[in-house]
Amino acid sequence: MALILHNFFRSSTSVRVRAALNLKGLSYDYVPYSLRDGDTRAPDYLARNPAGLVPTLERDDGVQMTQSLAIIEWLDETHPTPALLPSDPDGRARVRALCYMIACEVHPLNNLRVLGYLGETFGADDAAQKAWFTHWVQTTFAALETTLATSPDTGRFCHGDTPSMADICLFAQMWNNKRFNVDASPYPTISGIFDALSSIPAFDQAAPPNQPDAVT
Amino acid sequence: MALILHNFFRSSTSVRVRAALNLKGLSYDYVPYSLRDGDTRAPDYLARNPAGLVPTLERDDGVQMTQSLAIIEWLDETHPTPALLPSDPDGRARVRALCYMIACEVHPLNNLRVLGYLGETFGADDAAQKAWFTHWVQTTFAALETTLATSPDTGRFCHGDTPSMADICLFAQMWNNKRFNVDASPYPTISGIFDALSSIPAFDQAAPPNQPDAVT
Repeated sequence: MALILHNFFRSSTSVRVRAALNLKGLSYDYVPYSLRDGDTRAPDYLARNPAGLVPTLERDDGVQMTQSLAIIEWLDETHPTPALLPSDPDGRARVRALCYMIACEVHPLNNLRVLGYLGETFGADDAAQKAWFTHWVQTTFAALETTLATSPDTGRFCHGDTPSMADICLFAQMWNNKRFNVDASPYPTISGIFDALSSIPAFDQAAPPNQPDAVT
Repeated sequence: MALILHNFFRSSTSVRVRAALNLKGLSYDYVPYSLRDGDTRAPDYLARNPAGLVPTLERDDGVQMTQSLAIIEWLDETHPTPALLPSDPDGRARVRALCYMIACEVHPLNNLRVLGYLGETFGADDAAQKAWFTHWVQTTFAALETTLATSPDTGRFCHGDTPSMADICLFAQMWNNKRFNVDASPYPTISGIFDALSSIPAFDQAAPPNQPDAVT
């Protein structure tokens, strides 16, 4: 199946889907969009994705898939090897909970559009936006570090010794954190997992600097 | 299996898990927490849920389950009838994408703790908090309305004629919206689904006013 990924190099949700596609060994055409330039608000993009968000995974049967975690669950169901979720329900619940700690507690608060609203409506300058970003990372990362550091289910990666959907979310968020120079030293377990993930080509090749539209 | 739901009547994520438990016909003990009083920051609660968030579903084997959507996916895997996700991968991807539009784009921005930060740090008064809340609902609900209204997969509910996990998220968010009197009239498809869901006892009994800790 030919796949086209409509995405943006720096977008955390785009990093997630790129990593999943790479782990599954699926090739795709890369179509870049600039969020700052409003590319995703153009009518032809809104026809693909009414929310005007990246990424969208376009399939050659015409289906436009949205929402990174929905795409990754679909990839895992339709291309089962290597598995991105454990085989047991309790393991899947744990991995999904780790994912949602990032996807539902950290990332939505630190989107470009949210930072824009803070600037426009509340006059939040760069320092205030950095403080906001850092606050929500620290709030959840403290809990994530505790959860990972105290569980026997944590291995080299978030769940055992093979990368899962939770590692995909962790990897993408750590890249997001770098933009705001969030200090990772209070999170040794998370940092260790990030380092281990970064040595895997499927992850490294999904990272923002390694995309065709990357700018420093 | 005996289940204890640690939750809060008004919490949107608590509404979701209550609705799922009710749909599955599973009874549970209800333990209420007051978010405003900081009940979920107490050490014994943090031992259950290091993030200090509701809900937590406690099982009689001692497992403490967190993150509403991870709990609901687990409930659906371990208690398959009635199914809360379609049987086909494309259907599941669509339902999950609808869920995440709410769970990852709307709800995280409108949490009590986020509104508190806006008030404390940016001096956002009640009107500014209402404007913030409304903005993020409108942003995603416009896209959600388009997605639902233009898809042949939408039926009496978000996906066909039986309630799914997407309906659970929609129902919970609509209750959240009521707190801030968000005008639902621009969203006739969403409103119609909400009305249909409200006539189902499993949903109605999960609604905030119908909980033992409800206050007006």
